[in-house]
Amino acid sequence: MQLLDGTACSQQIRQEIAAQVNELKAAGKRVPHLAAVLVGNDGASQNYVAMKVRDCEEIGFNSTVIRMDENTSEEELLAKIDELNKDEDIDGFIVQLPVPPQIDENKVILAIDSAKDVDGFCPENVGNMCLGLPTFLSATPNGIMELLKRYDIETEGKHCVVLGRSNIVGTPMAILMSRNSKPGNATVTIAHSRTANLKELCRSADILIVAIGKTEFVTADMVKEGAVVIDVGQTRVPDDSRKSGFRNVGDVDFENVKDKCSYITFVTGGVGPMTRASLLQNTLKAYQRR
Amino acid sequence: MQLLDGTACSQQIRQEIAAQVNELKAAGKRVPHLAAVLVGNDGASQNYVAMKVRDCEEIGFNSTVIRMDENTSEEELLAKIDELNKDEDIDGFIVQLPVPPQIDENKVILAIDSAKDVDGFCPENVGNMCLGLPTFLSATPNGIMELLKRYDIETEGKHCVVLGRSNIVGTPMAILMSRNSKPGNATVTIAHSRTANLKELCRSADILIVAIGKTEFVTADMVKEGAVVIDVGQTRVPDDSRKSGFRNVGDVDFENVKDKCSYITFVTGGVGPMTRASLLQNTLKAYQRR
Repeated sequence: MQLLDGTACSQQIRQEIAAQVNELKAAGKRVPHLAAVLVGNDGASQNYVAMKVRDCEEIGFNSTVIRMDENTSEEELLAKIDELNKDEDIDGFIVQLPVPPQIDENKVILAIDSAKDVDGFCPENVGNMCLGLPTFLSATPNGIMELLKRYDIETEGKHCVVLGRSNIVGTPMAILMSRNSKPGNATVTIAHSRTANLKELCRSADILIVAIGKTEFVTADMVKEGAVVIDVGQTRVPDDSRKSGFRNVGDVDFENVKDKCSYITFVTGGVGPMTRASLLQNTLKAYQRR
Repeated sequence: MQLLDGTACSQQIRQEIAAQVNELKAAGKRVPHLAAVLVGNDGASQNYVAMKVRDCEEIGFNSTVIRMDENTSEEELLAKIDELNKDEDIDGFIVQLPVPPQIDENKVILAIDSAKDVDGFCPENVGNMCLGLPTFLSATPNGIMELLKRYDIETEGKHCVVLGRSNIVGTPMAILMSRNSKPGNATVTIAHSRTANLKELCRSADILIVAIGKTEFVTADMVKEGAVVIDVGQTRVPDDSRKSGFRNVGDVDFENVKDKCSYITFVTGGVGPMTRASLLQNTLKAYQRR
């Protein structure tokens, strides 16, 4: 079993980007600028945004965090998005999801200018991804593709089962893995809550990508010997033994699954850092396109 | 075995739309207007466009065909598209594909205003489809969904294998069948030329949707007893015994497959008329949105 080290791999990507930023600086040019909008006080969201800012600092991007109150109205957030769309100094921005319940998430996604949509969530970018056109790929699927690529994992002709059909992970993941590309060219099955014979289906997977948000859902009896297992899940579970009071648990029962796998990611240092690295790649791309 | 009668089903849809057009006329209102751009002299394309015009006439839509020479430049076609985008009198339009080789198909698709893109090919509409937002669904996948719906075929939890991963049929079909909707909620596998064990995979399908453009590719040994088989393929094969000099052949070996199926479409009167009906539905929607 080999652990897919998202921390090391994302470090490599960050160094590659940092080298490009240094070239820009040496040439006296402006550096890329990412903004993040954070509405409310969700602990996980605050943490994600803090990490994204740290990433920017490390590689030499400018970053701005816009904090908005828990009670922010939809109108106020849309006005802020409009402002960022027009802000010449910002190359790309994200609105950290989820947003509080008084705000319609779809309206948020639709309001972001596709040229600055570095999360790759807006229809035009999703459509470009489907059509194989230049786009901002959704960060998590793109991070997973990078991980497969940098570990040179063969995907062509393999059976890839994607557990979960969400807009931001499962569905784009399935599309990317089925494309005529490398990685890609896999035979892809999209499975979800209505899937019958889920165990049997998972056992038929050469590559199993799990993004359903159910802690330790995938058990050893669901994994084929030699499979590649990618765990996207990350749920905070209370844990009094930790200073933080919680620990992150994945969708895969790592301890019991790992020895059956050829490659596997762990909940920490796996997909998460790759997702963050993708955001930086997209921000650089947004900068370059202008 | 029951034949899925796309002719009858599309007739029903056309009658529903015609009733709405009559209401518009009775209220003294303008009727929907579809335009089709036809570049060159491809026989099949001319035939498709002629049928689309006939459909419009039958249900009371206005229609316009713009014929352009085989040697039309990309620039000329893009200028025509720009004109149609701005034409207040046109609710929706299509550019009949394929276009001659001197024209980049992607540029054509990207040039069409998404609000008039009744083929549902442009990135914004494809992305909306992926995200489950209001859109113009690509005509063939939408036609197949209508066929499944009107025959009340159970899809939830079924294994649907889609053979082919094209932008306009295979990929959107896979996405729609995997959605939390009715029809939908199927476990979907996207298979293609790189798929290993294709026979075995097809045999595991409760619903088999074939769109690969290889005549009579799916043989009886690839179909499970009781399966639903949808044949999207339509290839012109020379046939001297016909007045036209050709006959249409599907991707499925209909004669030998049909008796194993619970439901099946035939190459003629199957998916084709449903695709055309979808175009009319999209045109009506484009009209209503304005």
